[in-house]
Amino acid sequence: MTEHETQHDWDSVWLGANIATMEDGRYNLIEQGAIAVKNGQIVWLGVASDLPQYHAAYTYEWDGGLITPGLVDCHTHLVFGGNRANEFEMRLNGASYQDIAKAGGGILSSVNATRAATVAQLVDSAEPRLRSLMADGVTTLEIKSGYGLTSQSEIAMLQAAKALLDKHSVDIKTTCLAAHALPLEYADRADDYIDYLCDELLPKVAQLGLADAVDAFCEGIGFSVEQTERYFKAAQALGLPVKLHAEQLSALGGASMAAGYHALSADHLEYVTEADVIAMAQAGTVAVILPGAFYVLRETQKPPIELFRKHGVPMAIATDANPGTAPVLSLRLMMNMACTLFAMTPEEALAGATLNGAKALGIADQVGSLAVGKKANFIHWNVASPGELSYWVGGQLLQHRVYNGELT
Amino acid sequence: MTEHETQHDWDSVWLGANIATMEDGRYNLIEQGAIAVKNGQIVWLGVASDLPQYHAAYTYEWDGGLITPGLVDCHTHLVFGGNRANEFEMRLNGASYQDIAKAGGGILSSVNATRAATVAQLVDSAEPRLRSLMADGVTTLEIKSGYGLTSQSEIAMLQAAKALLDKHSVDIKTTCLAAHALPLEYADRADDYIDYLCDELLPKVAQLGLADAVDAFCEGIGFSVEQTERYFKAAQALGLPVKLHAEQLSALGGASMAAGYHALSADHLEYVTEADVIAMAQAGTVAVILPGAFYVLRETQKPPIELFRKHGVPMAIATDANPGTAPVLSLRLMMNMACTLFAMTPEEALAGATLNGAKALGIADQVGSLAVGKKANFIHWNVASPGELSYWVGGQLLQHRVYNGELT
Ligand SMILES: [Zn+2]
Ligand SMILES: [Zn+2]
Repeated sequence: MTEHETQHDWDSVWLGANIATMEDGRYNLIEQGAIAVKNGQIVWLGVASDLPQYHAAYTYEWDGGLITPGLVDCHTHLVFGGNRANEFEMRLNGASYQDIAKAGGGILSSVNATRAATVAQLVDSAEPRLRSLMADGVTTLEIKSGYGLTSQSEIAMLQAAKALLDKHSVDIKTTCLAAHALPLEYADRADDYIDYLCDELLPKVAQLGLADAVDAFCEGIGFSVEQTERYFKAAQALGLPVKLHAEQLSALGGASMAAGYHALSADHLEYVTEADVIAMAQAGTVAVILPGAFYVLRETQKPPIELFRKHGVPMAIATDANPGTAPVLSLRLMMNMACTLFAMTPEEALAGATLNGAKALGIADQVGSLAVGKKANFIHWNVASPGELSYWVGGQLLQHRVYNGELT
Repeated sequence: MTEHETQHDWDSVWLGANIATMEDGRYNLIEQGAIAVKNGQIVWLGVASDLPQYHAAYTYEWDGGLITPGLVDCHTHLVFGGNRANEFEMRLNGASYQDIAKAGGGILSSVNATRAATVAQLVDSAEPRLRSLMADGVTTLEIKSGYGLTSQSEIAMLQAAKALLDKHSVDIKTTCLAAHALPLEYADRADDYIDYLCDELLPKVAQLGLADAVDAFCEGIGFSVEQTERYFKAAQALGLPVKLHAEQLSALGGASMAAGYHALSADHLEYVTEADVIAMAQAGTVAVILPGAFYVLRETQKPPIELFRKHGVPMAIATDANPGTAPVLSLRLMMNMACTLFAMTPEEALAGATLNGAKALGIADQVGSLAVGKKANFIHWNVASPGELSYWVGGQLLQHRVYNGELT
């Protein structure tokens, strides 16, 4: 060393694999890369042979494989009471929707089971699901409420999500989805329920600091555009960003309305129109693609991938993990389904599960790609090329998981 | 104890979970069951409170969950050189089949990569795939050759499969699928290739004892019914049972022909006719349902589940794990796809991945259900009901894996 050179003092250095950084949503592959970490942040990233002089407490040298950003699952309903395997089985054994409703099935069965559970029970039941997502590469996820539908029970769901964050090596963003379904107490009084959410529930949730965003289910079987807009106004007045379940089963224009409120994302979007897509592009609203629900419901109307490409709307991919329409426990499998069912490219799929997922959560400055200044959340996969992450259907490809710069 | 009572002397006893025995292909659920094992076999099975006096070297008491038979994956092409992720990605980026063929894609690219690999390299590349299947519950699987298409290279594939058997806690049945595709050396000379298989390749494979069965791809783009029949006659003369890839893309009557040779199974069967199904029922030929290839190829013609039910043809479910049409690494996910895509019931799906898979391999006397005298191969799952095994899409539900009576 000359007197002008300084030796870097780092916590850890990671070597021996190729790196798909996903900066700008592209692979940006670095062959034989290296990542240096200090205080949980990436402080150097590049070709290993270009590493400057350094001292590090730990140097990890892997034998091949691929490093990608930790996956970001930007749309989940991971916390809920019970599950609906029984309903799934009844239906396949020929039960009608009426039979299932009589047996207490449908979304209200999840509401009943969730209301009956304590926060600790909600945490316990969500943990194996969270571990499944983490084991397949997730380092950041969003968890929505929406099976409580009372202040008390929605708050309990959000508290459970926060408790999961405290117990596991994963980042969790919470979303209040109180406008998910109409509870029985408000049957035929949807406007009254929206009043309740605006006047009482949302202010309480905001006061407790339990939600990073607010979401609704805008659909013929959910809430109207007008009701949703009223609820968004209340969220906005409380300083909470919004996002929306929109155009899943019909074209209502919810996505355009949400874009008008600078929604972080509009999600599902099978029936979105080009006008909606243009509004989303202008507002910077991310399109969240949810192939799991499409697959489970045997839908045939696909989200218009070409329109999102044409207008430069970032596409995220998420599990939608929920007990009814998407009991999905692998985000990587959703990447495969996005390619197989919607003809997205593997590069788009990986961007959807990393950088664009982070954009949909408003945290792309912190996670979702690998670059100096970002969190050192990354996955070491047993694959030779990033396309393999979308190509294999199932399987255990994850070899190592690094969260905040530490092996977990 | 009275003087007439004897105390059983067992190796291990397993308690604390419910058991779906899958005898006769039904759940036959035992609440709070117990399994006793000696010398790798089940020697007692029933309700734990009925256990007789016993001594056992180990008693394992679990805290809930469900025990099922170890899963049986009766149709895989798990051994191959390279993979086709690159082709998958090219196609999704808009490459034509011609472009892909020019770039060396398609099944012949797998043939080239397989021929170029040593037995040790084939074993190395198959191992992570095998570990994925095992981690999701598989204790028995079939592995086919079929990417060598020369005596030397088909034998190398079968030797690799046998080597995997020696190295892992899993039962492996090998199948010679030399009539999988026409190698370039025999372009436009399919009959000559069949002659080569009958006169030289099959006798060598039989002499080395490397194959438990013989399989072919009977299809417009594969081999004709007449060619397949000639090959089956040669197999039969060598004492090898047969099975067939039949009616996947068109109705050729291969399934009926195969039934005439008492085939263990006919596989795929999207285009099978009722006459075929009746012939299969009479011959005891199992229908192997492969939803992975259907999903990957975006097929719309479904196998006629109702006809198999009507005529009492046992339905097995398998991964078809292969680099082209089904890069599938989870049999449990195929259970979900059988329910979601083909409306099979979760009970049929579990029977398909256990008892009927064993029937398709001709080993239902040894594995595939839990009963006294059968091998102690079973899985302890983190689920409350057997339907959950088909309900969840992905995820890690396996808690413990018992092979030959030992935790593995
Ligand atoms: Zn959702
Ligand atoms: Zn096959």
